[in-house]
This record gives sequence, structure tokens and C-alpha cells, in this order.
Amino acid sequence: MASKKLMNSVAGCADDALAGLVACNPNLQLLQGYRVVLRSDLDSLKGQVALLSGGGSGHEPAHAGFIGKGMLTGVIAGAVFTAPAVGSILAAIRTVAQVGTAGILLIVKNYTGDRLNFGLAREQARAEGIPVEMVVIGDDCAFTTVRKAGRRGLCGTVLIHKVAGALAEAGAGLKEITERVSVVAKAMGTLGVSLSFCSVPGSSKPTFNLAADEVELGLGIHGEAGVRRIKMATADQIVTLMLDHMTNSSSVSHVSVQSGSSVVLMVNNLGGLSVLELGIVADAAVRTLEGRGVKVARALVGTFMSSLEMPGLSLTLLLVDEPLLKLIDAETTASAWPNTPKVFVTGRKRTRAAPSRPSEAPDFTTEGTGPCCWAVRGPGAPPPAVLPAGLLSKRMALVLERVCTTLLDLEEYLNALDRVSGDGDCGTTHSRAARAIQEQLREGPPPASPAKMLSELSLLLLEKMGGSSGALYGLFLTAAAQPLKTSTDLPAWSAAMDAGLEAMKKYGKAAPGDRTMLDSLWAAGQELQALRHPNANLFHILTKAVESAEAAAQATKDMTAGAGRASYISSMKLDQPDPGAVAAAAILRAILEVLQNLESL
Amino acid sequence: MASKKLMNSVAGCADDALAGLVACNPNLQLLQGYRVVLRSDLDSLKGQVALLSGGGSGHEPAHAGFIGKGMLTGVIAGAVFTAPAVGSILAAIRTVAQVGTAGILLIVKNYTGDRLNFGLAREQARAEGIPVEMVVIGDDCAFTTVRKAGRRGLCGTVLIHKVAGALAEAGAGLKEITERVSVVAKAMGTLGVSLSFCSVPGSSKPTFNLAADEVELGLGIHGEAGVRRIKMATADQIVTLMLDHMTNSSSVSHVSVQSGSSVVLMVNNLGGLSVLELGIVADAAVRTLEGRGVKVARALVGTFMSSLEMPGLSLTLLLVDEPLLKLIDAETTASAWPNTPKVFVTGRKRTRAAPSRPSEAPDFTTEGTGPCCWAVRGPGAPPPAVLPAGLLSKRMALVLERVCTTLLDLEEYLNALDRVSGDGDCGTTHSRAARAIQEQLREGPPPASPAKMLSELSLLLLEKMGGSSGALYGLFLTAAAQPLKTSTDLPAWSAAMDAGLEAMKKYGKAAPGDRTMLDSLWAAGQELQALRHPNANLFHILTKAVESAEAAAQATKDMTAGAGRASYISSMKLDQPDPGAVAAAAILRAILEVLQNLESL
Repeated sequence: MASKKLMNSVAGCADDALAGLVACNPNLQLLQGYRVVLRSDLDSLKGQVALLSGGGSGHEPAHAGFIGKGMLTGVIAGAVFTAPAVGSILAAIRTVAQVGTAGILLIVKNYTGDRLNFGLAREQARAEGIPVEMVVIGDDCAFTTVRKAGRRGLCGTVLIHKVAGALAEAGAGLKEITERVSVVAKAMGTLGVSLSFCSVPGSSKPTFNLAADEVELGLGIHGEAGVRRIKMATADQIVTLMLDHMTNSSSVSHVSVQSGSSVVLMVNNLGGLSVLELGIVADAAVRTLEGRGVKVARALVGTFMSSLEMPGLSLTLLLVDEPLLKLIDAETTASAWPNTPKVFVTGRKRTRAAPSRPSEAPDFTTEGTGPCCWAVRGPGAPPPAVLPAGLLSKRMALVLERVCTTLLDLEEYLNALDRVSGDGDCGTTHSRAARAIQEQLREGPPPASPAKMLSELSLLLLEKMGGSSGALYGLFLTAAAQPLKTSTDLPAWSAAMDAGLEAMKKYGKAAPGDRTMLDSLWAAGQELQALRHPNANLFHILTKAVESAEAAAQATKDMTAGAGRASYISSMKLDQPDPGAVAAAAILRAILEVLQNLESL
Repeated sequence: MASKKLMNSVAGCADDALAGLVACNPNLQLLQGYRVVLRSDLDSLKGQVALLSGGGSGHEPAHAGFIGKGMLTGVIAGAVFTAPAVGSILAAIRTVAQVGTAGILLIVKNYTGDRLNFGLAREQARAEGIPVEMVVIGDDCAFTTVRKAGRRGLCGTVLIHKVAGALAEAGAGLKEITERVSVVAKAMGTLGVSLSFCSVPGSSKPTFNLAADEVELGLGIHGEAGVRRIKMATADQIVTLMLDHMTNSSSVSHVSVQSGSSVVLMVNNLGGLSVLELGIVADAAVRTLEGRGVKVARALVGTFMSSLEMPGLSLTLLLVDEPLLKLIDAETTASAWPNTPKVFVTGRKRTRAAPSRPSEAPDFTTEGTGPCCWAVRGPGAPPPAVLPAGLLSKRMALVLERVCTTLLDLEEYLNALDRVSGDGDCGTTHSRAARAIQEQLREGPPPASPAKMLSELSLLLLEKMGGSSGALYGLFLTAAAQPLKTSTDLPAWSAAMDAGLEAMKKYGKAAPGDRTMLDSLWAAGQELQALRHPNANLFHILTKAVESAEAAAQATKDMTAGAGRASYISSMKLDQPDPGAVAAAAILRAILEVLQNLESL
């Protein structure tokens, strides 16, 4: 069976892809009856040198993606990996000549079929009196000895499109452009590497085979095998090997890049490599070149000349001076030319210093102004006394200790509940949090400010508890801390609970009834509203809140999961309470009990 | 074994990729100690609203590729497919706040981890007094019924980056931007499709499995499976299915695209799809939408938000009006935003008329001015008589007939020779040419002008002979025809031979001695130089030329191949003459014999 491809027919794939390109890019037009794409503003090019290129399909965005003001005038495409037809090339030449352009340069990659067909069209056009020149680009660095067929044309050809395009746009003549790009073409080199093959539409065979631990080095862009097969290695090692090969002066096809050279670097996705990997290779290439004293003037990273879905890449190096860089930097409307800043890559600062920590906002609740609710009082008692900071801190430590032991005691039970609906680690997660808090308490007492205590607890849970639970408790505590910054009276504690619940609902996208820890916290929060009344009875209200939370936790038994991991088996009846809701209710109960103990002292 | 990836370590892959992006793009900087990328001109943003986004790595170029003037201020990245750390998000917020920006908008894709971590950082930042808003984007059209978790954030998020960026650049306030993008986010939808899975770095398991004839529809961007598995179909069928699903008004997550609507279309490569296929799908999408009366305002085609090397794509539709289009069109320096013309895709002319055929150059050699060499004469004979055009045409037909029968007779012998060094079809190729010429002769006599006759022959061989041989003969004949346009005396025929040889050498990259058909033609050409002397003896010279060609053809036995297919086994001794050289010599012998017969009549 042929490889899976998103296409309508094998025969039509090149034409359909060109039609798509032209449909989506109003700067382009197809030439009726031919596999030719041209600038749609062709008629404005009177008196300017025109640039035509092209080649087989399967190399997209090359070549049609490089049509535009400042790059190519048009391209001629062949079938996949096949040279364009002479008739199409000639039709493109005639069309471009008939709008009154001042000569035409054909930019051709060095493959026999392309050379012959472009050459033939050129000879026929010249016989018709059209001034047509032709440059054949061979930038392949794979072969180290002279080969009659010359070096293959690879991704570096795109740089020639750019240089020639900038010259033509600046009004240079045909002879000048031809000579200039011939010189530039000699100052560059390209080498490819791939992790696997590609497959040609309609073919059932891969273009070559590779073992799971092998990498193909020095391959061409038609899926043909390379010059060497190497063992899989790190990105740094492979890039080093590639740059060594490309710049090795004993190879006839090397680029003379040395310490002190300035280069344009292209990192070209051969089609199917992840952009993540492309970035990793780009990093390795820049680091390695800079490590050798080479100045990277510009680094172009992207898909420029592909081999269908080949999971590989090529590196291109072009030696540049300031005048050449100006041409590389010149404006173009070509859709596939990258949007690259016009400054040197090498020599600039790539990091910014981390931000300063914000200065602490003044906290009016610490230092001798112990919050009322920690100095618990029965009904009818006189206004709460101010607790010294040291005592307050000690009381909070007692509360935290009890919360921790409660959670550690529940570990197995919570895990068992979680095995019904989740991945069975709810107890483990809460125990991890408890142990982290215990460890922190061993290092020193909690801050005397409740707002600060909750904020510190938030960061701790976020870091040590982990997962969604850690983030949700972190969110709850961070939001709850805010109202406590200015006051710690009973209404402020109700406001803290409400702020925490709001944040949990908002970012966690859970609502009461969704079978989550929010269910018990929400039920408690409703009862704690009563703290806002003057002369509210703390223990009375707190007791009701805990009981309400426990009832809500048990009620989750009959709920279907609406958020969190358990929602994936949403239609199932679970018959056990949600472990998160049970844990939250247990925490509230632990707090109540400690406060009651303190009161009874 | 883990899947093959170009990286240095699994743990470092996200950081290395970010480092590469920043190294190659001088507009970006990393925040020291965090997985945060920021505009390097951050300090110029005083008084402007800042935009932060981000998410897991593995979605490149999202999100850091969309940082720049007119788009994002910075992004925070997580590990592959993992939400960013709260500490990094908070550090980014603080940094951006400390340069004096006028509020910060967090643009977050709707995934639990992202929502929680960005939400937590936001709450902490607000607690520090920093004005931070947050929009959660859910553009997934996969699920047709309401889901508590809401729609997933996909590629449409990039459009929100663009719209928010344009507004911020234009000086809009935090509230205005937040409200505007919340409205825009509701007017879009995205659907993904993939031919296969991707694999997470370090993991040996694919993210899902698919049969060879199956396609995954409605998948997310973390490699998670989709909502439906469909049978492989054509690009048109799959695109139709996707657009149907996305715009079906009975689905809660549909986009209200109808006849008359204007949309921005995004065709997003999920990572490993060939750009050829992406173009085919783009064509199908534009055609299908336009077929439904939808106006495609802009079509953005490329890799925007990927899932590592997933060979799939997503389509995004955004309903637009003129003011929204202005924001989409606004300038940006973000490297991954495409260079798209600011005109409607729908409604413009996508083809250009084919060029007019060039007017024929006047040919002075036809119409009663029969060329001398066809009126062959012995030595010492009076100056050649002028042959009537009809007779000339008849003589050329005789020559061509003999060439054809000669080649047909040689078919098996040439194939046998070719089996030694090539693919064994040299005889078949030449026979195909011979039969095409015979068929043409049956349709009518050849033109009376030798230049025209060679030109027509060139086109015929190019079309019917095919391959490199067809192109090389085509080139030879086209070039040879030129000197014969103005004169057909004996020196002109030598010039024709030389022009043909030059073209063959130049575009075919073969030289005498390379074991090709050029060897025999070249040897003949050397002898034909003698035609340039006054009173040259045609038959004497022609005979020597044919003998020399035959000797050269035999001499190829001892040559190693330097060009053409045989050069791939270049070091082998072949011990048989080159079939192309043998065929060329045989053609020359056939011409000589016919001319001798005509002379003897």
C-alpha cells in the first residue's frame, strides 16, 4: 500500500499544491495551461531584470514561496522530485519577456534534468531573441572529492534567490546580477542530515532505509541516500560533525569558514522534523560556530527547501561581507522568506537579569496586633485581647501540626477512595504536602501574620504538593491571604474564605456539585458568612461549617464528576465520596479541634 | 527504545530549543533563571499594555515565535506538553511590570494546568499590586456537546495574540483589550486532523495508534487522541468533513460561518506534514469555503502551533469584519507571523493568460532557396544548384526515414549494451524516438527549411523520446538550428554541429572522454570543421566524420563513465562501448548513406 498522504490524486498533487499556494497568496498567479507561478504584479516589472527558478515539487516552500518583490519573478514546477517541463519553462520565459523586462536570469539547481530542461528552454528562448542567462547552483558539501556531475543544488539556492532578487530590485543589469551571484554561489555550502526517509506520493517504498540508531549524513533533497551513515548521537555531536565536514579544507566542496569569518547560517527543516528539534540544532550550530570564533551575522531558521516529510535538516553557511549582508537584509514580499532582524546574532546579550522581588507591602496585622480570631472567645466575652506575635505564631504552628497529622493518618483511606475514580494517589499527594509543612515547621515558626502565613503555605504547596491539587490549594491560599492583609477580624476571615473559593472556581473551572474538594470548602464557606455579623459566635459558626463540609463531602458519593480527572468517567456512578472533598473537610475539622483545645486551656 | 530525536537531553530539550530561538533572533532575550522569553526592547514599552502568553513546549513556533512589536511581549514555556511553572510566570509578570507597562494581559489556552498556573501567578501578582488580567482561549470545535472543562485552546490562540498585539501597539488600555479579545475568541473555531501520532521526547510510546487506512479527527495539540477515527479519504473529502463539523449549527462548539460570511482561514501544520500536502489542503479549504459562498478574507498557511512532529494539520476559521481585519493586517516583527498580502483571497483572478507565441523570425533559407548541402555535388563540380523546396523536403524525409529504421534495427543491441552500465533501456528510448519521427512523417513532409526541421525535431524528441537523451538531443538540435537560420552552406552546417556540441557539453556537463554520446558526435564535429574551407569536399569530409565517430564510439569501451547514469559505477571497467555513442555514430552513418544514394541517382 502506498504511504498515507493528504492529497486528491498522485497525478494532481503538484498542481493542487500550487493552486493552494496561489489561492492563499494574492501576490501570485498561475500561468494558464502551465505549471508556472508568477508575480501577479508582473506588468510593473518593465525595464527590470526578471528572475525565474524552479525545480521538482516536493521541496515546498521552494520555490514558489520565494516569489515576490525583492526575490523571484516566477517559478516553474515539475512533478514531485522531477525537473520542470521545457514547455512550461519556455512559457514562463516568454510571458516574463513579453511584459518588457530587461533580460531574464534562470536560477537552476545542479541536477541533470533541471540543467537540461532549463538549458533547452533557454536555447529556444535565445533563438527567439530573448536575452536569457542561466546560473547553475551547486552548494552541496557532502562529497569530498571532485565529481563530474558537480555539487548538487540544495538550500543555499534560496540565498541566491535573495541576493539576485535584491540586485534586480535595485536595478542591476542582467550581466551584473549573473556575475555577482556566480561569485556568491562559490562562497557557500550546505549539508543535510536525516533521522529517517520520506516517501514519494503513490510509492509504497521509502526512499532509503535506516536502522533505529542510525542517522543519514549528506543526503540530497530528493530522498536519495547520503554519503555516510552514522550512529545516533546528541544534537551537539551531530552538528559538530556536520560543521567539521562542511569546513574541512581537505574536502573539495568545503566552505572556507575560519575563525574571524562572518557567515549567514541557515537551519533548514527538510520537512518532518519538529520545530522543537530545529531550535535545538540552531542553538548547537550557533554555539559551535561561535566557539570556533566565527561571527554569525544572521541565522535563518525554518523550512526553506524540504524533501516532503523528511525528518531531517540541512545547515547552510554563506560567507558574507557588509555589501552582501545588505542584499540579504533587503526587503522582500516573498511569503517564505523569514522575518529576521537586521543585526548580528553574535555579540549581543541574550539574557536579561531576573526581576527584583517586590518590596513587601506593609502588613498591619503583625507585630503586637494579634488577630482576634486566634484569640478565641466565647459569646458575650469582652472584645478580643491583642495576642503577642510570638504566641500567635505558636498557635498557628499547633493548627498546622494537627492538619498534617490528620492528613498523614488519612493517606491510605484517601488513596483507596481515589482508586475508584482517579489514579489512586490522592492520599499520597496530601501526605506529601503534610510532610513538607512539617519539615518547614521544624525549620522555624510560621510568620505571625496570617496573610503571610497563607502566602508562604501557598508557595510551599505549589512546589512540594504538585499536580492540580497543589495548584488549586496554592490558588485558594494566595487569594485567601489578600483580605487578611489589612484586617484579621472575623468578617475578614469569611472574606478570605470567599476569595479562596472564587479563585478555585474561576481557574479550576469547578462548581459546587462537580464532585471535587470545592464541594466541602464551599459548604463551609456558606456557613462562615455568618462571621460577618456583629457579635458572631466563632465556635458555633465554625462547628456548623465543619459539619456542613463533612456532609457535603459525603454527598459527593451521589454526584457524577464534572471537573478534574474523574470527569473522564463522568457517566459512571461512583458510590464513594470524592477523596479531595473528604480531605478538605478533615482539614477544617482539624483546625476547629485545635482552636477548641486552645480555648479550653 | 525511545523515539529518535535530535536533542542533547530529554530534560534540557525545552531550554535548548528556547536558547536556539533566542540565539537566532536578536529581538528576543531569555529571563535569567527562568523559562521565559521577552522582547529585547522591553524597556521601550513603558505606558503600553503588555501581553504574556505561553504553555507547554513542543508547540513551536508557538508561543515564543509570536513575540515582537505588534504581538506578544513575552512568553513562558513549560516542559514538553506541560504547563509553565508558576515561578516563571510570576517572574515574567514582575519583569514586565517593572519596566513601567500599563497593565498586563495573560493569554492562556484552556487546559487545566495552564489555567491553574497562570491563574495562581496572576493572583500573586495582583497581591503585589500589579494590574493583571487573564483571558482563557478555547477554540476547539471537536466536541459537539457541552463539556465542563470547556473547549481546548488550539491554533486560534495565535489570532488572539495578533489581535491583542495590534490593539496594545495602538495604545489601547488593558480593559479594552481584554474585552475585545474575549469577543473575538468567541467568533472562531479550530479542528485538527492527523495521519499518525507524535512521540514525546524520552518516551518509547506513540501518543496514540492508528491503522494504516485511518485518520484521527478532532485531536488536541498534546498528542492526545481525537473525537473520531475516520477512514483515509481524499484531501477534498477530509476538508469537507472538517468544515462540516466546524460549522454544524447543532454542535455547541461550532463557528457560525454561513454563505456571505467573511473569514480568516488558518491552515496550520501540526509539525510533520509535508508542505506539499499543506498546500493541497489549503487549496481544498479555500475551494470548499468559496463553494459555500464564504468569502475568505485572508488565508494564513504554515506552522503556527504544532504538536512536535505530528503529521497532521488544523483548520481555524475566524469571522471577521473590516475593523478586525485591520488588526490582523497590522504590522508585526514576530518571526513566526506570516508575510501575508493585505487583500481578500476570494474574488481575485488567480490565473494569467498564456503568453502569445513569438512571431516567427524570417527564414531566408526556404522557399526556392534550397540549401547547398542537400544538393550534393562531387569535387570540382560547379557551385550547387538551388533545390526547389518540395524536393528538399522529400530528401530530408528520406534521411529521417533511414535514421529511424537504423535505430529500430539497433534496439536490442543498444539495450544489451545498456544493461552493462545503465538501466538497459537505451535501445527502447531510441526506438521510441524513431517511431515518433515515423509517425510525424506519415502526417506530412518535414519543413523545407533545415533550421525549422531541426527545431521541430527538437520539440518532438523532447516530448516523445523523454529522459535525459530526449533533452540532450533536443538541446543539440535547438542549438544547431540557429546558425542554419541565415545560411545553409557547408560552413553553416559545421557551425550548426559546433553549436549543438557546445550546448550538449554546457548543459549536460559531459566532455569528450566521459563515455557518452558526445564522444562520437564530438569526433564527427572535429572532422566537419573542414567544411569551413572553400571548395570543401562534402562526401570526403562526411565519410571521414562518420568513420571518426564510429571509432570514437568503439573507444568508449576503455573509458570510465564521467557523466550520466553510468558515472555512478565510475570505477568499474565496462568493456563494452557506450550505447549512446554507438547510436549517435549509427545516426551519422545513416545520414551519409542516404546522401550518397541521392548523389548516385
